[in-house]
Amino acid sequence: MTLAPTAAFHRALIVGAGSGLSASLARLFAGHGLSVALAARTTEKLAPLCAETGARAFTCDAGNQASVADLFTAVEAAIGSPDVVIYNASGRLRGPIETLDPADVARALEISAFGGFLVGQQAARRMIPQHHGAILFTGASASIKGYPQSAPFAMGKFALRGLAQSMARELAPQGVHVAHFVIDGGIASASRPVPAEAPDSLLDPDAIALTYWQILHQPRSAWTWEIELRPWVERF
Amino acid sequence: MTLAPTAAFHRALIVGAGSGLSASLARLFAGHGLSVALAARTTEKLAPLCAETGARAFTCDAGNQASVADLFTAVEAAIGSPDVVIYNASGRLRGPIETLDPADVARALEISAFGGFLVGQQAARRMIPQHHGAILFTGASASIKGYPQSAPFAMGKFALRGLAQSMARELAPQGVHVAHFVIDGGIASASRPVPAEAPDSLLDPDAIALTYWQILHQPRSAWTWEIELRPWVERF
Amino acid sequence: MTLAPTAAFHRALIVGAGSGLSASLARLFAGHGLSVALAARTTEKLAPLCAETGARAFTCDAGNQASVADLFTAVEAAIGSPDVVIYNASGRLRGPIETLDPADVARALEISAFGGFLVGQQAARRMIPQHHGAILFTGASASIKGYPQSAPFAMGKFALRGLAQSMARELAPQGVHVAHFVIDGGIASASRPVPAEAPDSLLDPDAIALTYWQILHQPRSAWTWEIELRPWVERF
Amino acid sequence: MTLAPTAAFHRALIVGAGSGLSASLARLFAGHGLSVALAARTTEKLAPLCAETGARAFTCDAGNQASVADLFTAVEAAIGSPDVVIYNASGRLRGPIETLDPADVARALEISAFGGFLVGQQAARRMIPQHHGAILFTGASASIKGYPQSAPFAMGKFALRGLAQSMARELAPQGVHVAHFVIDGGIASASRPVPAEAPDSLLDPDAIALTYWQILHQPRSAWTWEIELRPWVERF
Repeated sequence: MTLAPTAAFHRALIVGAGSGLSASLARLFAGHGLSVALAARTTEKLAPLCAETGARAFTCDAGNQASVADLFTAVEAAIGSPDVVIYNASGRLRGPIETLDPADVARALEISAFGGFLVGQQAARRMIPQHHGAILFTGASASIKGYPQSAPFAMGKFALRGLAQSMARELAPQGVHVAHFVIDGGIASASRPVPAEAPDSLLDPDAIALTYWQILHQPRSAWTWEIELRPWVERF
Repeated sequence: MTLAPTAAFHRALIVGAGSGLSASLARLFAGHGLSVALAARTTEKLAPLCAETGARAFTCDAGNQASVADLFTAVEAAIGSPDVVIYNASGRLRGPIETLDPADVARALEISAFGGFLVGQQAARRMIPQHHGAILFTGASASIKGYPQSAPFAMGKFALRGLAQSMARELAPQGVHVAHFVIDGGIASASRPVPAEAPDSLLDPDAIALTYWQILHQPRSAWTWEIELRPWVERF
Repeated sequence: MTLAPTAAFHRALIVGAGSGLSASLARLFAGHGLSVALAARTTEKLAPLCAETGARAFTCDAGNQASVADLFTAVEAAIGSPDVVIYNASGRLRGPIETLDPADVARALEISAFGGFLVGQQAARRMIPQHHGAILFTGASASIKGYPQSAPFAMGKFALRGLAQSMARELAPQGVHVAHFVIDGGIASASRPVPAEAPDSLLDPDAIALTYWQILHQPRSAWTWEIELRPWVERF
Repeated sequence: MTLAPTAAFHRALIVGAGSGLSASLARLFAGHGLSVALAARTTEKLAPLCAETGARAFTCDAGNQASVADLFTAVEAAIGSPDVVIYNASGRLRGPIETLDPADVARALEISAFGGFLVGQQAARRMIPQHHGAILFTGASASIKGYPQSAPFAMGKFALRGLAQSMARELAPQGVHVAHFVIDGGIASASRPVPAEAPDSLLDPDAIALTYWQILHQPRSAWTWEIELRPWVERF
């Protein structure tokens, strides 16, 4: 059997872009020749990454319907309709259930889950007619386990997983690959460096990005909808 | 070993009350001597049930913070602070992901999940100081499986499950029992009677209520946080 | 709606009987008028329980096909064909994977999982023609989580859960209720008493037995196949 | 951040080798320069694959302790100690629970689960001292769902998953990567070709092998223990 080449991807949109996983994804995608669009609530911080990779930055409030619709219009005008869309935004909120501010909880849900729907819907509308495209959702340990004093994050991440699973079942037979990544551990960053005495004990964002890339390029006869990633020394 | 008697419950609040499971719960609780409060967006439909059981009806928009706060104040004034709170409300919405109205999706999430948080928080605030009480959340098949063309319901029910799991871990050691019921099948009702040729092929709401009652009365040395229920002939 | 009375149970067989959960089940069942049969590799230890409850004790190696077949024949002769069969036996084995003795692992699997099949099969053969009966399997934390240095126990308990799930799907539509109990915590016993400073921090076997009893009596329109139980202060 | 190169792998042992996934794995590994050993109960059928890839074939009964020990000794002598070990063997058995032959069930468990332990143990003994190596277990839909009339396969595959999860938690911090692949669909083969009207509707074994290869080469800061694969049109 000779493995048919998988469809190529040309334009990636990463929503919830910052300095961590999103930057690794942007570099990896740009390095492979994709046009990259980055969306965040504020884009000043993205300037160095854009300069480095040629990515374009867009302002977007992922939890706002009009803002997300505008984002896709602007991205289409700038680089064309994205055939890879990644949803990285999330609203984390901790505290005893009895003292959480409901407005903060509503906002956290809006970012973690409703924004995923808004972005996923815009992506689906463009990908389904092409029978081509991939929508990748970034989850966390809280996607599959509700920790104490962390109800809003569990609510948002569980909801995003439900969205991803429903969309995977709905869109796969239409040729659109939906996948959900459970990032089960801390991600290394400038402000959270890997301890010298515990090598590779935090997730390297470049390593995470590599797995996104590989899932993205799976032949459609063997698609994955969910995969978890954690450091070798992480308890689970 | 002699099993210590479990704490008694005296006042139940059922949010999302209608003619199905909530009515069965109200009858069962009232029959065991509990004072019962029923909350729904409109309460006219609850009049016969109130007449039958002595339950009190309260108007409440479960997805609205002020409305939920007012509900608890009113219930306390009427029957005292509830030591059993049941969240039955949900917003179901079906359709292809690309045609769903985002406003409808937001509203569905508000009812299915955010309302569960609002009610759970008010309940927790009252139960934690007493080291006594139970908060029961009603889930569905969609709580654990995201079906195609049903993303909003999956999002809401997954989120509610994440809330229930987080609250169970957080509140159990404080003496408050949080449980999540996965109702995995259709519920029989006046408008959806059990087919004569397929006896017991729909969930009898009285049978569901019975299991709620039993979980409620579990001794704290052996608490359940999740249980599923389905008809004997249901495929799963 | 009036809840139809559930079928009554008359004869219970408990395999893997000892002084803990099995004794609580035997007392509870006998107290409700059921004839009780207890099976264990050695039965001397069961004499006081038999004297107390009127239960009959039978010698059986649950992992041995002929022994299990003989057991059912003997039980039928003594009390009639059991309509409740509970499988409590398990083989626990801990240690680093590289030092475990394969013969011990094989034996552990035989007790935890293969014995469950043998007993479940004999039970199914008798219950299916009656369209009545219940087969209850006792699981553990290891049924759903594979802990380090505990591979054989995870293998056995995962396998038993797979058996229970397959049998539940297969036998429910034939009127036989199969359920799986995840006992997620330590069980109090004479040799492992509950610490005075941490009341109810171990599972009371009488409390577990109570939930078995309730699941057993669920109306068939609302059957459970899996439920977990843990002490209120147990981390999970 | 620059991604450190992952450790290279040099010698692969595939247990339960036949014409499907194992052949794809053998070709892929051999093509990347690894020495490949194939183990099966009978090896005649492997001759063409060995001729094509340079792989060495070994006779082994995976459920037999001595046979597995001999296998590792022979493989070490022939190609050196394997740093990749893949367990593909399984015993499938279908039928109503009441008519299954217990001897067949025991044999199915031996192949699907106990053999996985035997092979995993031999692999672990060799890899732990090197702080290097990967052990990959092949699961199926039945690993996570117990279907009716399929109890023995569910038992074996659930058990293998429990083994893999326990070993992953135990061995990861020792530098050995354990992963479990849930193959959720039919695999295309000469005797089961992909229908022309439903392209890619069966798993291409080369596509599966590709994902094994990628998981194998994950940097240890971002390891996966479980991933599922299914055709784009497969219902799940």
